[in-house]
Amino acid sequence: MRVSELSRSSGVPVATIKYYLREGLLARGATTSPNQARYDSSHLRRLRLIRALVEVGGLPIAVVKEVLGAVDDPDTGLHGVLGRTVYAITGTGGTEADSDVTDAAEADVRAITAHTGWRVSEKAPALAGARSVLARMHELGHAPGEDTLRLWAEAADRAADGDLRAVAHREADAGREGAAETALVGTVLGDALLAALRRIAQESHSAARYRSDC
Amino acid sequence: MRVSELSRSSGVPVATIKYYLREGLLARGATTSPNQARYDSSHLRRLRLIRALVEVGGLPIAVVKEVLGAVDDPDTGLHGVLGRTVYAITGTGGTEADSDVTDAAEADVRAITAHTGWRVSEKAPALAGARSVLARMHELGHAPGEDTLRLWAEAADRAADGDLRAVAHREADAGREGAAETALVGTVLGDALLAALRRIAQESHSAARYRSDC
Repeated sequence: MRVSELSRSSGVPVATIKYYLREGLLARGATTSPNQARYDSSHLRRLRLIRALVEVGGLPIAVVKEVLGAVDDPDTGLHGVLGRTVYAITGTGGTEADSDVTDAAEADVRAITAHTGWRVSEKAPALAGARSVLARMHELGHAPGEDTLRLWAEAADRAADGDLRAVAHREADAGREGAAETALVGTVLGDALLAALRRIAQESHSAARYRSDC
Repeated sequence: MRVSELSRSSGVPVATIKYYLREGLLARGATTSPNQARYDSSHLRRLRLIRALVEVGGLPIAVVKEVLGAVDDPDTGLHGVLGRTVYAITGTGGTEADSDVTDAAEADVRAITAHTGWRVSEKAPALAGARSVLARMHELGHAPGEDTLRLWAEAADRAADGDLRAVAHREADAGREGAAETALVGTVLGDALLAALRRIAQESHSAARYRSDC
């Protein structure tokens, strides 16, 4: 199909498609004349993926470029794709909290990793991110108690177990590239899905506990 | 303290504080003269809470106003506070996906609620939100398999169990208002914390599975 058709099918404006081509987010089509190229269903799929990462995941284009670069690089293994994705999309927070609050948050994170047995690089941005959110919670006087912290850690562990299983299934069916895309979609869109599922579960648990008071 | 001191301690500009006062997000101080009011630590705490909801949770001010309105309303029970919070902050997505994709997403959500036993209003925005993300995943060819879906549902269930326990603990210690704030902070900042914990867990699970390939 021509670029105009690709635009119509994907809902992405032609100017944006040309920008993605220049930036290397989308592979060039097969050249049919000096001014024309033909695109196929792989281009349409890629545009849908970019749209989902931007619209559902809220990722800036620079981050989309970085994570798609990892997916597209055949030398980056699945652990590498997941790592580059997770490192690229994770904010580290950055509070300037008091040291007692930071110490308490640090102790929480140590308690979590001790409870779950997670082994992770000290440089992982998510460690800094978790510390930063916990520091805020302590500052606000709403830090989670030990049992809540454990349940949240177990929830994250179970979610990650689901993530890795999805990647492994996909690898068996579709090889490295398909699995790399699954890792990306599961991580980014999975955040939105897990947040939605948690809200559904909250409503259900809350109704069971408090129904009579509303 | 005066408004200038409140601004310095909270890091919130005086003009913004005055805007919050006009909008009812912050209670008025005790008037000491026609042009002056005194503020106390409750005002400082409230400003820190607003900052966290905006900076960590990314909530628009209109949504902050709605959720603080629920916290401040003594006639809204804890189930009501959680419900108003969750309904106010949850996007419903809104895809215009093909009907086969929407049907598949709908079936996924039914499978999840059957597996977990969640009971929830058909009007819950999070149901529409979950359906919308799942429809995107189907459209992209990366819908989670049955086992991943179950693990994600169990993760959300465990997280919500942690949420409700935190609220119940707080209610025992600090009554309705403290518990209402815990529900709010846990829901909004908890999203960011759970996402960070999931990324830490992903790194750990992925290293265990794929370490040799990177």
